[in-house]
Amino acid sequence: MKELAVGIDIGGTHTVFGLVDQSGNCLVQDKIYTKEFDTFSDFLITLSDQIKKLQLPNKESFKLSGIGVGAPNANYMNGTIENASNLIWEGVLPLGNLLQRNFNLPVKITNDANASAMAEMLYGGAKGMKNFIVLTLGTGLGSGIVVDSKVVYGHSGFAGELGHIIARPEGRQCGCGRYGCLETYVSATGIKRTVSKLLAKYSFKSDLRGIPFNRMSAKKLADAAYRGDEIAIESFEYTGKILGIALANVVAINNPQAIFLAGGLSKAGDLILKPTQHHMEENLLSVYKGKTILSISKVKGNSGILGSAAMIWNLI
Amino acid sequence: MKELAVGIDIGGTHTVFGLVDQSGNCLVQDKIYTKEFDTFSDFLITLSDQIKKLQLPNKESFKLSGIGVGAPNANYMNGTIENASNLIWEGVLPLGNLLQRNFNLPVKITNDANASAMAEMLYGGAKGMKNFIVLTLGTGLGSGIVVDSKVVYGHSGFAGELGHIIARPEGRQCGCGRYGCLETYVSATGIKRTVSKLLAKYSFKSDLRGIPFNRMSAKKLADAAYRGDEIAIESFEYTGKILGIALANVVAINNPQAIFLAGGLSKAGDLILKPTQHHMEENLLSVYKGKTILSISKVKGNSGILGSAAMIWNLI
Repeated sequence: MKELAVGIDIGGTHTVFGLVDQSGNCLVQDKIYTKEFDTFSDFLITLSDQIKKLQLPNKESFKLSGIGVGAPNANYMNGTIENASNLIWEGVLPLGNLLQRNFNLPVKITNDANASAMAEMLYGGAKGMKNFIVLTLGTGLGSGIVVDSKVVYGHSGFAGELGHIIARPEGRQCGCGRYGCLETYVSATGIKRTVSKLLAKYSFKSDLRGIPFNRMSAKKLADAAYRGDEIAIESFEYTGKILGIALANVVAINNPQAIFLAGGLSKAGDLILKPTQHHMEENLLSVYKGKTILSISKVKGNSGILGSAAMIWNLI
Repeated sequence: MKELAVGIDIGGTHTVFGLVDQSGNCLVQDKIYTKEFDTFSDFLITLSDQIKKLQLPNKESFKLSGIGVGAPNANYMNGTIENASNLIWEGVLPLGNLLQRNFNLPVKITNDANASAMAEMLYGGAKGMKNFIVLTLGTGLGSGIVVDSKVVYGHSGFAGELGHIIARPEGRQCGCGRYGCLETYVSATGIKRTVSKLLAKYSFKSDLRGIPFNRMSAKKLADAAYRGDEIAIESFEYTGKILGIALANVVAINNPQAIFLAGGLSKAGDLILKPTQHHMEENLLSVYKGKTILSISKVKGNSGILGSAAMIWNLI
């Protein structure tokens, strides 16, 4: 009988989950729409049912060893999700207790970006690295920081909120109630806001003028940039400049060996990587210049599922 | 026979050194003027001679177990000082090798701010804390970051360069060759530059108009502020604002339990603490508000000497 762990990645739009073996293979996975559920309790009932329905395609029997979850604003220490602005349910959600009651299995919970960092270390580009950072560029900007081979949780479990360092004082309004946070510029949502700004500033012809804000996506922007659309190209340059400057500061604090970009916006590849690299290098203190790797995530598969499941095996 | 360690704190102006026991008592100490020596070799010969001349006041005999050194731009991994802009000797200085040759004892070298962080954890306000940061506000701004009870060295040994995060893009010229670094505002030198700026901006009467830039000091500024000098008071407010905003960002990255201010400028006490606290709280993400302690260092004695010596006992 094969031992497997459940890995769950709760996102603002989708929640994906799967069964993962100790080698990091996700043998089967499915998803539900996070936003469809009015209450957290309804969400958890459906999620639990769907997990119980997961079957290996080859009818192999298996035993579940535990459940690992990556979620926004997850508190590793308390097993709760706390005031996540990217989820529709407010307050403190006792995710760990409820899952444990439904499954009677060990449950471990971490921030979604920390799960991605663990996946990067075990199965991606950070294999063998002791000090690195993963940024997840999705609806918001999450980050998992690894120091000396361990995820940094900090005093109250909320380290790694790089999305909420102030990149531009008195800048864009953020969901956290403040202004100028990095994620209002550098995320799938942030770059959409940048396109709006650039459409106002420049008079270039652009296919993007025909797409409403709500229908814009990092994928459409990347496609337009590859076609030579100047607004699209400039939106990646603008985003990369703000991210590069922020990363130069982060390097001065934690001196990581590498920084990996994951999540939807990172799928634009060199379009986002190159300007970020350029502006990071330009702003680095000389002692770090040319010594910090910047790369797109090298995890194959869903890093949220793989990293969450890895917590069950105590792999890091 | 009592076992003692030598603790050395190399600063841009003074180098202080002493003999320390395992309980953190500095039994005897002395200092030399760092700037007096044209070559690093001359400096080390005199430093070694002076250390050998140290005698306990009560004629007690002792045995030296090793030598710990805190120095600017010290590389813990290589035992070198590398391109320290606050020292007059250029290039890579093989401090560890030379001291070991002179004394034939184990030598450990770390960044001066890391030494202060170790002293804070063992003998100061961070006793029992696992996650905290110490800032040394002297000629420059140094920082020692502790995560999970260990000093963060990062990939190449240069973590904790908080003095060189860009606080103001295109701001003040820094010794590192860039512009707007935090230490050009927040350090004993930085606040002198702020006084110059404020003397230009305002027309208030101020005793500070009679003091040349080179003779200004944090001590004179504090004295003037306590007398009600508006320029002096405003210079602490301005410094505290820039520091408070920077610390709010640092908290979002590492989520420390506490941040301690050490070094010359910290001796101004509430004059620098209060505005920093106010602006840090104002800029913190809500999840951290009211949960991060800001305090003046509570180490009694020279934290550079005590923290450096502590490395020899492997106390952390």
